[in-house]
Amino acid sequence: MFDEKNAASGFSGTLKSGVRPALLVVDYQRAFTEPALSPLASECEAQLVATNRLIDAMRDLGPVVFTAAGYDANGSDIGVWKQKNGVLATLKRGSAHCEIDPRLHVDPAKDLLLLKTQASAFFGTPLPALLASWHVDMLVVAGTTTSGCVRASVVDAIQFGFAPFVVEEAVCDRSEAQHASNLIDMQSKYAEVVKLGAMLDILEPLHARSPASAF
Amino acid sequence: MFDEKNAASGFSGTLKSGVRPALLVVDYQRAFTEPALSPLASECEAQLVATNRLIDAMRDLGPVVFTAAGYDANGSDIGVWKQKNGVLATLKRGSAHCEIDPRLHVDPAKDLLLLKTQASAFFGTPLPALLASWHVDMLVVAGTTTSGCVRASVVDAIQFGFAPFVVEEAVCDRSEAQHASNLIDMQSKYAEVVKLGAMLDILEPLHARSPASAF
Amino acid sequence: MFDEKNAASGFSGTLKSGVRPALLVVDYQRAFTEPALSPLASECEAQLVATNRLIDAMRDLGPVVFTAAGYDANGSDIGVWKQKNGVLATLKRGSAHCEIDPRLHVDPAKDLLLLKTQASAFFGTPLPALLASWHVDMLVVAGTTTSGCVRASVVDAIQFGFAPFVVEEAVCDRSEAQHASNLIDMQSKYAEVVKLGAMLDILEPLHARSPASAF
Amino acid sequence: MFDEKNAASGFSGTLKSGVRPALLVVDYQRAFTEPALSPLASECEAQLVATNRLIDAMRDLGPVVFTAAGYDANGSDIGVWKQKNGVLATLKRGSAHCEIDPRLHVDPAKDLLLLKTQASAFFGTPLPALLASWHVDMLVVAGTTTSGCVRASVVDAIQFGFAPFVVEEAVCDRSEAQHASNLIDMQSKYAEVVKLGAMLDILEPLHARSPASAF
Repeated sequence: MFDEKNAASGFSGTLKSGVRPALLVVDYQRAFTEPALSPLASECEAQLVATNRLIDAMRDLGPVVFTAAGYDANGSDIGVWKQKNGVLATLKRGSAHCEIDPRLHVDPAKDLLLLKTQASAFFGTPLPALLASWHVDMLVVAGTTTSGCVRASVVDAIQFGFAPFVVEEAVCDRSEAQHASNLIDMQSKYAEVVKLGAMLDILEPLHARSPASAF
Repeated sequence: MFDEKNAASGFSGTLKSGVRPALLVVDYQRAFTEPALSPLASECEAQLVATNRLIDAMRDLGPVVFTAAGYDANGSDIGVWKQKNGVLATLKRGSAHCEIDPRLHVDPAKDLLLLKTQASAFFGTPLPALLASWHVDMLVVAGTTTSGCVRASVVDAIQFGFAPFVVEEAVCDRSEAQHASNLIDMQSKYAEVVKLGAMLDILEPLHARSPASAF
Repeated sequence: MFDEKNAASGFSGTLKSGVRPALLVVDYQRAFTEPALSPLASECEAQLVATNRLIDAMRDLGPVVFTAAGYDANGSDIGVWKQKNGVLATLKRGSAHCEIDPRLHVDPAKDLLLLKTQASAFFGTPLPALLASWHVDMLVVAGTTTSGCVRASVVDAIQFGFAPFVVEEAVCDRSEAQHASNLIDMQSKYAEVVKLGAMLDILEPLHARSPASAF
Repeated sequence: MFDEKNAASGFSGTLKSGVRPALLVVDYQRAFTEPALSPLASECEAQLVATNRLIDAMRDLGPVVFTAAGYDANGSDIGVWKQKNGVLATLKRGSAHCEIDPRLHVDPAKDLLLLKTQASAFFGTPLPALLASWHVDMLVVAGTTTSGCVRASVVDAIQFGFAPFVVEEAVCDRSEAQHASNLIDMQSKYAEVVKLGAMLDILEPLHARSPASAF
């Protein structure tokens, strides 16, 4: 996962890990995780297991944010994307398609669910403001798809000032080739792409710090 | 409603009216319109009547967008505003506090309802993108409060490239003094503050044009 | 500076002061500070003196950001504001109109100058991202005009997650009435409006903390 | 350039071409176009020739916008990206590294130059507001790099409501593999990737329409 020309150009430095993490789980909603429900889905059982490891590790450390794409039943809020991706109109807010996959360890009393309408979790949502108000300095990223909403969210994360750490085992795509290619781009320019074990090793010692103030 | 010093400074020009209008109705949700329900409310019967005149005039002309402020029951998405305005935590999404006032002529099959968390209707919502995708060139504004979410939305409207027309009889505030002062600021720098009759006279002839393509 | 109806509504809480401050100095550029140069200006000698007290207090504590409004000589980037405020076209980038007032204690080796095109210092600039990357938790605000770019920036500050502290002696307006009215709105809903002495008392003890990491 | 799994999922529809185009030329500044000047550059003579064909075709049709990445000499505005891409600090505003390549047909009397600090041309700039104020309905895209600032700008274009048309011969990357992979992603989800000849065929008939009002 290394692009030699970019390294020669002075890209591919290393983001410092932080001490005030947040976890962003992108679009693990049933339309993307249940092939029986929607053509948008892909098999992601292993990735959900890895994501649960991250969720569990984040408890008492910092906020966990889930996003789901969802639209008004009248379709008025899809925007230009409707022409390109007509299937998005099936993601009606309030329907099963927009429910977070029940295999994930969501805690409704603490976690934040953000509904979004475009690719990036930062677009048309209060996410950048909330991360700033929490003084987050490391954004751990899981979700789907690697080449779509994950990539778009990761680019925005570093643009908005939050160092993204993409956990390889916790992101998923319908296409293996695009999955691999987007990991290269993200590692070259925008993020640290890390293994689950390495991420857990970064998070674990943070529990010894004074607990994060409730957000 | 005129600030002589600003006029002498070269402010207070006149925005051209457009031919592709949208109507923005800010926060006429029950918490702000029913004094029996919430301390946030003020009497606004006359303003709702005026707003309905605008809604009716917009049918077949362009999109009608309603906003409501609303938060997760766990309070995780209020941000720094929670410290300043603790009462906002009462605006739980899905509760009566966030329902659009039933006196308004909402058409769920066509209209867009945007939930927002901050003052501006443009902040943390897809509104700027949707207005751009509809090629809106005149944003008619109604809502509450004049000194709060209306003013914040109007400033963002012109910043995002959409000429705002604030209809005086259709905006409302808890304080008469702040209502009047904010109309002066908006007229001086950011918007046309117009009478309901004048706005209806602008909208009426647009019906003779070819109908706006469905959005 | 108190709005009783808002207090009764549960607004007008108190923002906590922070430990990682930044100072935002809005549009103290020569076109707004030299009446001999531009009709946009007002007398603000006292406000500049107060602002220098803040700048001096911030040295070694955190970033100091100056904004100036400025446009391409061909006028292509003013947007809809051109219709409302034609005089803005005089603010050509690179001209004397856009220079920060030389009375201010700018340190080019450390400070950030942001050129902006709209009212809010957060609009169309990387300011929200930079404040997030510095983990700012208190935004001290000076500048002009209170009813224009200061108010717009303060509303955006709290929306973007940064608690704004407006220093009364360091903000300026062409109109006394609008100055006073906007301080009421900001104190009621969006900010702490504080006296210069009180702000210096908040900043002074922060020097005893470990120095802020260079940004 | 086709991703079968995405097509089966209902992605890969077709964006309608518009009648109010703008041309966005991303980062064809000397640091990216002159290998003798910077390790960031790649050979792009053919792409610049194609871009000039687009610029010439756009004259009297609509706005042409050039972006360049550039930073304060003191490095205060790079944000988190500084850690990942240290080489960006060489792009000092006002230096040769930030000048638009002189081979391009820039018209300073009409064109807009936007300085940006992050990957997307829409991030921290007034671009979305200006495109909205011009009522743009088709954004023609040229520039570099395909996998970096072009991709980031294209994703934001459709998010902000402007249908992006990426001209294959006019975009450039240091890596052939990443260039190809990103064209697939853009065509699948966010844009029309079109040949130069096809784009010119779309633009040419628009000259017969009444001329676009000056912006």
